[in-house]
Amino acid sequence: MIGREIRLFCPATIANVSCGFDVLGLCLDAVGDQMIVKTTAQKGVRISKITGQDLPLDPKQNVAGVAVLALLDEIEAPCGFEIKIHKNIKPGSGIGSSAASSSAAVFGVNHLLGNPFQPIDLVRFAMEGEALASGTPHADNVAPAIYGGFTLVRSTTPLDIVSIPTPAELVATVIHPQIELKTKDARAVLKQQIPLSNAITQWGNVGGLISSLFLGDYELLSRSLVDVVVEPHRALLIPGFDTFKHAALEAGALGSGISGSGPSIFALSKGLATAQKVAKSLELRAKELHLNCEIHISKINTQGIRILS
Amino acid sequence: MIGREIRLFCPATIANVSCGFDVLGLCLDAVGDQMIVKTTAQKGVRISKITGQDLPLDPKQNVAGVAVLALLDEIEAPCGFEIKIHKNIKPGSGIGSSAASSSAAVFGVNHLLGNPFQPIDLVRFAMEGEALASGTPHADNVAPAIYGGFTLVRSTTPLDIVSIPTPAELVATVIHPQIELKTKDARAVLKQQIPLSNAITQWGNVGGLISSLFLGDYELLSRSLVDVVVEPHRALLIPGFDTFKHAALEAGALGSGISGSGPSIFALSKGLATAQKVAKSLELRAKELHLNCEIHISKINTQGIRILS
Repeated sequence: MIGREIRLFCPATIANVSCGFDVLGLCLDAVGDQMIVKTTAQKGVRISKITGQDLPLDPKQNVAGVAVLALLDEIEAPCGFEIKIHKNIKPGSGIGSSAASSSAAVFGVNHLLGNPFQPIDLVRFAMEGEALASGTPHADNVAPAIYGGFTLVRSTTPLDIVSIPTPAELVATVIHPQIELKTKDARAVLKQQIPLSNAITQWGNVGGLISSLFLGDYELLSRSLVDVVVEPHRALLIPGFDTFKHAALEAGALGSGISGSGPSIFALSKGLATAQKVAKSLELRAKELHLNCEIHISKINTQGIRILS
Repeated sequence: MIGREIRLFCPATIANVSCGFDVLGLCLDAVGDQMIVKTTAQKGVRISKITGQDLPLDPKQNVAGVAVLALLDEIEAPCGFEIKIHKNIKPGSGIGSSAASSSAAVFGVNHLLGNPFQPIDLVRFAMEGEALASGTPHADNVAPAIYGGFTLVRSTTPLDIVSIPTPAELVATVIHPQIELKTKDARAVLKQQIPLSNAITQWGNVGGLISSLFLGDYELLSRSLVDVVVEPHRALLIPGFDTFKHAALEAGALGSGISGSGPSIFALSKGLATAQKVAKSLELRAKELHLNCEIHISKINTQGIRILS
């Protein structure tokens, strides 16, 4: 089996989804990296090439390498693995750049080994990569990358992941102001104590959002996409946040918020036409603000990581 | 239409349901009051008789009266209403005694008027009764009493209520230690600031619990019935709480926690046989602790308030 290789699409993801800080995430379809994973005679894992971004090739310093090492720690693999990555997702963009690499790497290795591990195990391994990237082993990006669609990370210890249905007409628009915001720094602005009243508002909205996804109720979804805990603090780190959010809602988005730890801002809309209208409106505001931004429009990817060949 | 009367079953309810403080509730079937609502020539509302408990007949001092007055404030009623209540649910028991009266009263009046108001309006009126009883107009008992089954109060301002499906085999066991615990006092022990990490755990569990109800996943339901925010404080006010909770889980309950603000303790089980086993185990522990307790076993009431005749 030496020399077998697969090429993967490694999707970007939106963590938190407004109210669901550290627990909710969704998988994108139109934004992602590509990765080639190949079996080699030499045991262990080697990252031979990274294009698109300047990232370390040393497996112990690379999220994909760390994740695969965690996997190989739990199985006697008959071969080693070589990984080539083409990054389209910029690190520090807030749409799960590290999660795309760490989750696709373990997905690819698991596939080439004949799938000895379950999706929940892959999340566990990929979380080791997340720990390298941000200091904490969170699962809210790797879970949707591996499961697809919307995921709830009910708990990380023990790990408990729930797949939530995706309403068919939901489309995401993402604007990425071209600054880098490290997850570590975005976490540092959060208060470690929060008012009980805000916490109640937040878990009411988490309940509403999850119900809306099961019910396919876009209006309830819209009312639930509210974050009273994290957004008020993190928004200050993101140039133009209020302007972009306001523009997205005015253009018809169901809701808008910070993607992961930012600086990307997401909006969810019912239907492609509205998502495109939102994108145009965001583009216009970015020009007015003289902010260099990338804008993506994407369906929700209910499959997660895809094997391209 | 003068002299028409209906007799109602006014169900007890369990608010919070462990993780869902102030937002979740469920409706019971085997425990409740009875109420007769009758149209009268004399306008306004009169409470002519209360049996079972010693409660004020003055409509302005009675939760049912206050709720009906709120309703009558918004409509030109062609008649007045006389209410007779037989209380089986003890005030201060934690299973929605005041909510049973306030919600059934407005349900009955609305019915006799030809249903000019929607269920969400009835919740709004009944909340005025709750404000009289506990100082805050919460909806987590009146919503399940009026809608039946499990309800999520996503928000109280504006009021936003979501009906959540009930898995068919779910049965509740409730033990009521015979002490009275005022909601006001039970609220006073809560901290107004909570750790962000606990809040995240809690909204992960709210998401898990709601998902489990949509999915009919009893194991996920069991894992999600955890309260790290309120129970640690309120449990101290309830004699025997830890013993009863432990006994319920040991007897096979999916989860157990404080019903509303206590002192009643609920357990949810899959199937009647387990719920009965839980009840027996609770009864035994109550005897060992020399605590006078009432125990109820009840299916989840998916209908809410019922017209008996």
